[in-house]
Amino acid sequence: MPERPVETAPAPSGVHSEVGRLRKALVCRPGLAHERLTPSTSDELLFDDVMWVEAAQRDHADFVETMTSRGVEVLELHDLLGEAMDMPEARTWLLDRKVIANRVGLGLVDATRSSLDALDGPELARVLIGGMATTELPADLRTAYANLARESVGTPEYLLPPLPNTLFTRDTTCWIGDGLTLNPLYWPARKDETLLMQALYRFHPELSGSRVWWGDAERDWGQATLEGGDVMPVGNGTLLIGMSERSSRQAITQLAAELFAAGAVERIVVAGMPRLRAAMHLDTVFTFADRDLATVHPAIVDGIHAFSIRPADNPLGMEVRDEGERRFVDVVAEAMGLKELRTVATAGDLYASERQQWDSGNNAVALEPGVVITYDRNTQTNAALRDAGVEVLTIRGAELGRGRGGGHCMTCPIVRDPVDW
Amino acid sequence: MPERPVETAPAPSGVHSEVGRLRKALVCRPGLAHERLTPSTSDELLFDDVMWVEAAQRDHADFVETMTSRGVEVLELHDLLGEAMDMPEARTWLLDRKVIANRVGLGLVDATRSSLDALDGPELARVLIGGMATTELPADLRTAYANLARESVGTPEYLLPPLPNTLFTRDTTCWIGDGLTLNPLYWPARKDETLLMQALYRFHPELSGSRVWWGDAERDWGQATLEGGDVMPVGNGTLLIGMSERSSRQAITQLAAELFAAGAVERIVVAGMPRLRAAMHLDTVFTFADRDLATVHPAIVDGIHAFSIRPADNPLGMEVRDEGERRFVDVVAEAMGLKELRTVATAGDLYASERQQWDSGNNAVALEPGVVITYDRNTQTNAALRDAGVEVLTIRGAELGRGRGGGHCMTCPIVRDPVDW
Amino acid sequence: MPERPVETAPAPSGVHSEVGRLRKALVCRPGLAHERLTPSTSDELLFDDVMWVEAAQRDHADFVETMTSRGVEVLELHDLLGEAMDMPEARTWLLDRKVIANRVGLGLVDATRSSLDALDGPELARVLIGGMATTELPADLRTAYANLARESVGTPEYLLPPLPNTLFTRDTTCWIGDGLTLNPLYWPARKDETLLMQALYRFHPELSGSRVWWGDAERDWGQATLEGGDVMPVGNGTLLIGMSERSSRQAITQLAAELFAAGAVERIVVAGMPRLRAAMHLDTVFTFADRDLATVHPAIVDGIHAFSIRPADNPLGMEVRDEGERRFVDVVAEAMGLKELRTVATAGDLYASERQQWDSGNNAVALEPGVVITYDRNTQTNAALRDAGVEVLTIRGAELGRGRGGGHCMTCPIVRDPVDW
Amino acid sequence: MPERPVETAPAPSGVHSEVGRLRKALVCRPGLAHERLTPSTSDELLFDDVMWVEAAQRDHADFVETMTSRGVEVLELHDLLGEAMDMPEARTWLLDRKVIANRVGLGLVDATRSSLDALDGPELARVLIGGMATTELPADLRTAYANLARESVGTPEYLLPPLPNTLFTRDTTCWIGDGLTLNPLYWPARKDETLLMQALYRFHPELSGSRVWWGDAERDWGQATLEGGDVMPVGNGTLLIGMSERSSRQAITQLAAELFAAGAVERIVVAGMPRLRAAMHLDTVFTFADRDLATVHPAIVDGIHAFSIRPADNPLGMEVRDEGERRFVDVVAEAMGLKELRTVATAGDLYASERQQWDSGNNAVALEPGVVITYDRNTQTNAALRDAGVEVLTIRGAELGRGRGGGHCMTCPIVRDPVDW
Repeated sequence: MPERPVETAPAPSGVHSEVGRLRKALVCRPGLAHERLTPSTSDELLFDDVMWVEAAQRDHADFVETMTSRGVEVLELHDLLGEAMDMPEARTWLLDRKVIANRVGLGLVDATRSSLDALDGPELARVLIGGMATTELPADLRTAYANLARESVGTPEYLLPPLPNTLFTRDTTCWIGDGLTLNPLYWPARKDETLLMQALYRFHPELSGSRVWWGDAERDWGQATLEGGDVMPVGNGTLLIGMSERSSRQAITQLAAELFAAGAVERIVVAGMPRLRAAMHLDTVFTFADRDLATVHPAIVDGIHAFSIRPADNPLGMEVRDEGERRFVDVVAEAMGLKELRTVATAGDLYASERQQWDSGNNAVALEPGVVITYDRNTQTNAALRDAGVEVLTIRGAELGRGRGGGHCMTCPIVRDPVDW
Repeated sequence: MPERPVETAPAPSGVHSEVGRLRKALVCRPGLAHERLTPSTSDELLFDDVMWVEAAQRDHADFVETMTSRGVEVLELHDLLGEAMDMPEARTWLLDRKVIANRVGLGLVDATRSSLDALDGPELARVLIGGMATTELPADLRTAYANLARESVGTPEYLLPPLPNTLFTRDTTCWIGDGLTLNPLYWPARKDETLLMQALYRFHPELSGSRVWWGDAERDWGQATLEGGDVMPVGNGTLLIGMSERSSRQAITQLAAELFAAGAVERIVVAGMPRLRAAMHLDTVFTFADRDLATVHPAIVDGIHAFSIRPADNPLGMEVRDEGERRFVDVVAEAMGLKELRTVATAGDLYASERQQWDSGNNAVALEPGVVITYDRNTQTNAALRDAGVEVLTIRGAELGRGRGGGHCMTCPIVRDPVDW
Repeated sequence: MPERPVETAPAPSGVHSEVGRLRKALVCRPGLAHERLTPSTSDELLFDDVMWVEAAQRDHADFVETMTSRGVEVLELHDLLGEAMDMPEARTWLLDRKVIANRVGLGLVDATRSSLDALDGPELARVLIGGMATTELPADLRTAYANLARESVGTPEYLLPPLPNTLFTRDTTCWIGDGLTLNPLYWPARKDETLLMQALYRFHPELSGSRVWWGDAERDWGQATLEGGDVMPVGNGTLLIGMSERSSRQAITQLAAELFAAGAVERIVVAGMPRLRAAMHLDTVFTFADRDLATVHPAIVDGIHAFSIRPADNPLGMEVRDEGERRFVDVVAEAMGLKELRTVATAGDLYASERQQWDSGNNAVALEPGVVITYDRNTQTNAALRDAGVEVLTIRGAELGRGRGGGHCMTCPIVRDPVDW
Repeated sequence: MPERPVETAPAPSGVHSEVGRLRKALVCRPGLAHERLTPSTSDELLFDDVMWVEAAQRDHADFVETMTSRGVEVLELHDLLGEAMDMPEARTWLLDRKVIANRVGLGLVDATRSSLDALDGPELARVLIGGMATTELPADLRTAYANLARESVGTPEYLLPPLPNTLFTRDTTCWIGDGLTLNPLYWPARKDETLLMQALYRFHPELSGSRVWWGDAERDWGQATLEGGDVMPVGNGTLLIGMSERSSRQAITQLAAELFAAGAVERIVVAGMPRLRAAMHLDTVFTFADRDLATVHPAIVDGIHAFSIRPADNPLGMEVRDEGERRFVDVVAEAMGLKELRTVATAGDLYASERQQWDSGNNAVALEPGVVITYDRNTQTNAALRDAGVEVLTIRGAELGRGRGGGHCMTCPIVRDPVDW
């Protein structure tokens, strides 16, 4: 008998929980962009250290295999983008927006465009994600303008920037129920990720036709920035959003207005985070492992200030409530309709706990209720999860973890079932 | 007999040199924005230290008086903006762009707008330049949304950001011959300055009707950023532009194409600067004091790599030439048609020279050939300029200098005569 | 009738309060060491910015004049050290400790020593405080070893390090009752200051013969570091000590043991400070202006955790008591025998308060009860002090304040009367 | 037949080359000190990232096994120190120097000492290397003084500091010919390492009786600091020393004088290094792989300025010669009596080369001529070494490399044969 029952029409779609069966997810394997990480560039590219790319690719392949062996259909960004770039309309749309004078510089636009147009879809996708330095322009297309480029920095300047944070597909887009957001990301180094995803959702048959709640990579969103690591559709009509350096109230309130107008959610619990690098996203300190169980980093989660936003009959269509002194986990439990939200704290002594949070110990991704993937290195927190009855599947984090993200950050669920409880 | 001869029509206009008689200039006095500089915010606002605002205002008034006493007509940004904000059309245009959900947040747009609309022009100008914190919203206009704002940072968050770098009017717009540029500035903390200036050039009778070569605060310019501290229309059809962290080749080449198309200049000498804080703009290490005399900081100027861009009969209408090993000052002399460009180096021993450059010792602004304003504290460099025959008028730099800019940075020439030589 | 009554023998000596009549104090005027501050060296020399030395000297002279005009006898470090360096025994003692292979390098010891021995006392003092670069070694005394020195850093390396923080005489030694401490300072850049003071207390007739409670510049004190900005002998047998980054429990407990053994104080109130640059010493957030009045920076002082150390009949001769939740100012008031300690907070709004603390607004030095010297720039806090009945004498802080110290930091009281209350 | 021939008396001793057969070496396995590395403490402990300690221990064990399988006798620091701490005289000597009021604080000396004296040798060694927090003091030995300790930092303060850089045994002591140095290390965080080694060389039968050329952990060496990563006794009477941030001319010249006086070496080639984190020691950019072959990082090695120091008939017994424009590798080749020094550069493109140097790609340790151990991750440089005929044995660097040191840094050769060439 098959593990999964035969589905009758219609196929499930959308993301309806954080721990229901994960059916389809998007990932992005390490590649050319990570080969460009060096001690002198990693900071601006938001990585803490350089990476052994071949090993990271092997570890990422194991991560994908762990998911597919549990029945998850895994889409990969290079693959999808490569297919899209073999579609002339998609290629034109994207290159018209990437290869412009404001980015590559007048005098290099034509050379860059013809150089890219000579590539097939997969190779173009590799370069769109991995970047293209001025020095990589073919010699016969180089002009004196390229000298200006080299001069202006002393190191190769990019015609297309490398996008190593595509590894964290969670952030760029996020599905909430039956639709998704195309997120304006916080750091300039990441903004182009959304443009790539927008090309896919516009042109790739696997994704096109989806409903977009909010976001558009072609617009300037000012201080309205949102990253998927802060967004958790936990079910029961409730959405959690971390309000952090990277996800602002300007974005959260706009998204709330759209979701309420569409009747997509009934309540948004806002997690007001302290401004710390260790707390950059809600999912770096708080993720779900089972219907009523979360792994949390108390040193930070205890300091979260909660708000609730609900639909209202006023011009904005919503109202904000300050939850005051109530504990965040209690507000979440109440919103989800749980008697209690059980928690597993980052384990070990003071040192181990801080280290494991840093090493993405609280960044679990659930494949189904009670089954999660985490990094191997957080042995104490993994043991605590197992003691709580969770099946923990581990992947190597030695290389993948250097960008400060774990399994939750590296997956963008596209289809995930609701859970009953 | 009056010092300046009676002018017959037409009145002079535009900026035709770096040292010809300065007839009209724009400045911006210190104010509310500087009162918001604190040790914890000065870095992000690009100041090295906090400022005693009353003293800075006094010193700035002396600076203005020094100019007016020499016949310069001095416009002041608060004054102009206050007048413009008393014009309903200008007020609407600007507030429609400043008070939007992406900036102030949904739920606070109406309250912020009505709060601002209650102010008269001068007071609104003060707030547009000085900023408005969420906590400054009148109590009767505060909603629960304002709590989100306070929560997200722990310190007052701004509905309108303070713009302390308006002090450096040089950067935001620059006149080149008979037209000007509305510059896309490099740092996010400064971007709104250009929007204010655009409102003035669009609506204020003193400035409207001017020809704009390039730039538009309503567009996204990507990596095409330009700051006026890098731009020097030295005459003889030549324009110098520093290519630095802040002024990019993407901007320089676009501007070049526009200027050549209009026949406004014949040659642009690009100064490829090293990437150092001390060398943030060309005018921090190199300014003119007389027709054929510049004050320079050799430790940096000797490392400048020069390029020339000239009109050409090709699709882009221009061509780039790498000046290779030629000294920057020699390229400049040749372009200006000088036999030799005399230089006065930052004076004193190793320590004094580095300190004086840091204290804007090379940031002189000329009122006419051979007459410059500099800070009092750079006594050795000032003495060296005097030894070279320059009349040096000094102003106090103890407070004004803490933003790392001197007289050149604090003036935006609007009318300056050409020089003959 | 003279303002001060005729004193009969014996002359007062020692420091018996923070606000009693100040009779004698040590200061150090800005000089050669500050001429060596540059943007690239100021950080390691613990200054936030470079300084206009001539202006700082003028402002410091006014500071001294303000004190002498009120009857304070002011000693100056260059003067005292110059006199000492004309005493052969003192010169030998100090140079034997400064000019050694571990500091100047083998191969340069003899050259450096003979170069220094050629200087008269005042000039030698200038160099001992101001530093001597390898490049300043007379040409006829330079050897190939000097090339090693230049090579190792790229900028002049010092044979004698500049000591710009001598400006803050408060820190290096502190009088407590009838004796003093020779403090092991926290930063390596300051350690040599204590050696200079030790030479004075050993050899100079003005200071020799004093009782030293604790400290010896010739010993390694490990983590036992103490700076006078944390030490306040407030009278009534009570000593306040800030426990900060710079003054450690290892030092405080050793000093306590010595003072109790000598019966010099009856109680030490330890102010456990948060670790912030703004709170580097207790006197940066808390100083006395009158018998029962202190100026405080509440944002930090409210977070002080107090302990009391008292003599006890046990092997260590003392016991520590954790004051728990009691407010620091209440503990101080009780220890001083006051009904209440009145406070004047750093004045102005959120921004002004933070800026004035940073600009040494809480760093007042009292000349007698109710008469203090502060910087001119902290206008709002100065006004608040005046409102509280304090006579505030101001000095210019534009230059002197760049090392983040005010009048309290720049004076080391040597004779100060007790107060009655 | 045994791989190594039967040795006849006398046993070889001392270190006579960089690539001759390695017979005995000291290492230190990861442990308690690394369990204390957290994101908030790693910087001050000189690590770039936290470490998965169990994995690091496994990888280090493989490293040791790789050496022993090739006939190297490997000593381990915990083992040796544990044996020494079971010797009463050694225990007393070391604890008398570690547990003093200047370090642990008055009031905690007795408690700390009795707590440590209750441990057996191996456990005491574990704590001496791994550190002991104030909170780890047994409850019955805690006094109110311990509250002071906790208060002063907010995180546990150490009674004994953790010493995670003991992993890099290369730096602390170095054998040069028939004697060794006990190095004064540059960073305060490492100074105690030398004291531990001094205890071993004084008391442990395996090491005691060795000749010490220079250094004494009980003395203050001022600016005379030396680290073994800069010291390479390459044979032919030549010693290479990197002059860097960490190894100063003050130390190098003192060591030179001692070595020349003893006739231990005939020439010292000083490598004047640029001041970059990537170039912290000579062995981070330059190590030997065979008699006449070195692996180098050209971006830094090409910038080395060489000096030679030779014995001379003058009062200092030596003279310094500036090698001027001569390439460092040419000076080394000449000093070693080689026609040419072959080099293998960090391989790969611009990015790969910078990353591999950072990942200790040039930090090879030779087991015998032409046989080296390196990290697995530097695949391109390892391939280049193999192409040059070198046998490359790899170890995992994912965890061990996070302190920025490789096989060369993690070994302190105690017996290594000379090479003939």
